[in-house]
Amino acid sequence: MKTFQELSQLFLTHFNIRHFPDQPPGLYDAAAYMLGIGGKRLRPVLSLMGNELFSEIQPDAWKIASAIELFHNFTLIHDDIMDKAPMRRGRATVHVKYNESSALLAGDVMLLQAYEYLNGTDARIVRTLIHLLNQTGKQVCEGQQLDLDFEKSESVTSADYLHMIELKTAVLLAVSLQMGSIVAGASEAEQQHLYAFGKNLGLAFQVQDDWLDAFGDPEKFGKQSGGDIIQNKKTFLLVKALEAANADQKKEILQLLDQTSPDKVQKMLDLFAACGVDEAAKKAQEQYLELASAHLDAVNVSPERKIPLRDLGAYLMQRKF
Amino acid sequence: MKTFQELSQLFLTHFNIRHFPDQPPGLYDAAAYMLGIGGKRLRPVLSLMGNELFSEIQPDAWKIASAIELFHNFTLIHDDIMDKAPMRRGRATVHVKYNESSALLAGDVMLLQAYEYLNGTDARIVRTLIHLLNQTGKQVCEGQQLDLDFEKSESVTSADYLHMIELKTAVLLAVSLQMGSIVAGASEAEQQHLYAFGKNLGLAFQVQDDWLDAFGDPEKFGKQSGGDIIQNKKTFLLVKALEAANADQKKEILQLLDQTSPDKVQKMLDLFAACGVDEAAKKAQEQYLELASAHLDAVNVSPERKIPLRDLGAYLMQRKF
Repeated sequence: MKTFQELSQLFLTHFNIRHFPDQPPGLYDAAAYMLGIGGKRLRPVLSLMGNELFSEIQPDAWKIASAIELFHNFTLIHDDIMDKAPMRRGRATVHVKYNESSALLAGDVMLLQAYEYLNGTDARIVRTLIHLLNQTGKQVCEGQQLDLDFEKSESVTSADYLHMIELKTAVLLAVSLQMGSIVAGASEAEQQHLYAFGKNLGLAFQVQDDWLDAFGDPEKFGKQSGGDIIQNKKTFLLVKALEAANADQKKEILQLLDQTSPDKVQKMLDLFAACGVDEAAKKAQEQYLELASAHLDAVNVSPERKIPLRDLGAYLMQRKF
Repeated sequence: MKTFQELSQLFLTHFNIRHFPDQPPGLYDAAAYMLGIGGKRLRPVLSLMGNELFSEIQPDAWKIASAIELFHNFTLIHDDIMDKAPMRRGRATVHVKYNESSALLAGDVMLLQAYEYLNGTDARIVRTLIHLLNQTGKQVCEGQQLDLDFEKSESVTSADYLHMIELKTAVLLAVSLQMGSIVAGASEAEQQHLYAFGKNLGLAFQVQDDWLDAFGDPEKFGKQSGGDIIQNKKTFLLVKALEAANADQKKEILQLLDQTSPDKVQKMLDLFAACGVDEAAKKAQEQYLELASAHLDAVNVSPERKIPLRDLGAYLMQRKF
């Protein structure tokens, strides 16, 4: 059994290869640049952990891990185009470094290559895996569309928001674990428990991310506090605050959204606290973590085998409320 | 054995369904709008013909046909974004009618759904089919990247140009036929002959398309003559003219490219004729058609079964030089 850090390192020894030919460079250099930006490689590691929960890591799990990481990068490149994001992890985004067309096509070829890796898995599971990627891919696109829709909407509820992040973020974590377990021959019930573990972990993580952006210690978190507030981003905190606010508070929040005053962040944080969304976010995160934990409990393997997944949950949440 | 027109109609009875759920409409209405723009449905019909060449049309051929048409529409939506094209077949393009983000995501979900249809084919062929779509998909992206690169390049040869249209256009026609034949259990040699038939037909068609844009009768062709010349598009004619021109002619062509004078089209056509590219295009097209025909000859089925494919070739070329 290996830790997240060990698996992340091991994954890179498989993944840090040239996935594409050289020609034409306008296309494939853009794809290689994106993959070189790096990241935690959380999703492929989840595939490996979903496999190692039941057995030694099997060859197909590595193929799935590479497919999942390429798929994830396909969504990131396309999202960055749509969001007109200038930077990712401190580097210029692909459409800025190259151009939008190359970025769009680089995303497309990553998705195609993800299918090629999945298509190399055992004949007994290949169709199940490809079906799961098709389904999850559509959900992720739906989540991104909802996220874009919400930016223009004034009536987003916390339920809407949670539905959106489930699609945009959580289902890919969930299916990564599930795919890994399928390689090991896990039963449908065990697959579904792992899926639910990953989904709820993803929801907890996203709610925590929103909280940290507002209330976190910028030194520990590594991001400017209140970035979401400055950008009027519809976070769990904002949609929850608009639901919980009384008439006066709601008016104040809506007025603040139209402002760019220097004390906007502090005023919004005060309103969030007054509406109790600080507590609401903590509670939501705890509930998702409890659900995740219960689903992991229900998987029929020895408690020792579950240690890496429990540790991963703790690791992801250590940037604590 | 059915004609192109019959198969095109039959295909629509299978294809004109709702391929996606309703929610979110920003995503799936955009996808449905694109599919509603229509077209000749040439590629799916090629899949059906590739199948019917050897047997009655089999259920998997319909799945392949739908997958291929969705794949083709995925490339069209993304190309239209990159080319900033305002219109397609007399209708507003998806990114104009909706917005670029919805168009980008609609393209993505079409590709995902194409895999879902392919994934429903028989277990004995599913991996071969998915591998072929992965490979062809990457080639089409490479072709689009080269097309974009060529717009900015001053040293595109006719060999470069033909390589680009092979990737961007011809390989998808080729693989459509091949996939249909795989359903019928065609041998590898027969598959390759059909692939080569489709590829050469596609090259002939594209060279003819370039010729018609310059020299065709606008009433019969349905497009303004000289549109490519006005836009300085790198066509077979232009790259060939730059190769064949003497020093004076080359200078004149390059000067014309910098102009927007009202007689630009006529002057360029005169230069094309003086450089002999009118004849060169005719000759190239004839050579591709002969190659296509030879590969169809080599397929080991009765001549009667080949009639729809021969008629299709003639139909595509009836917009004659």
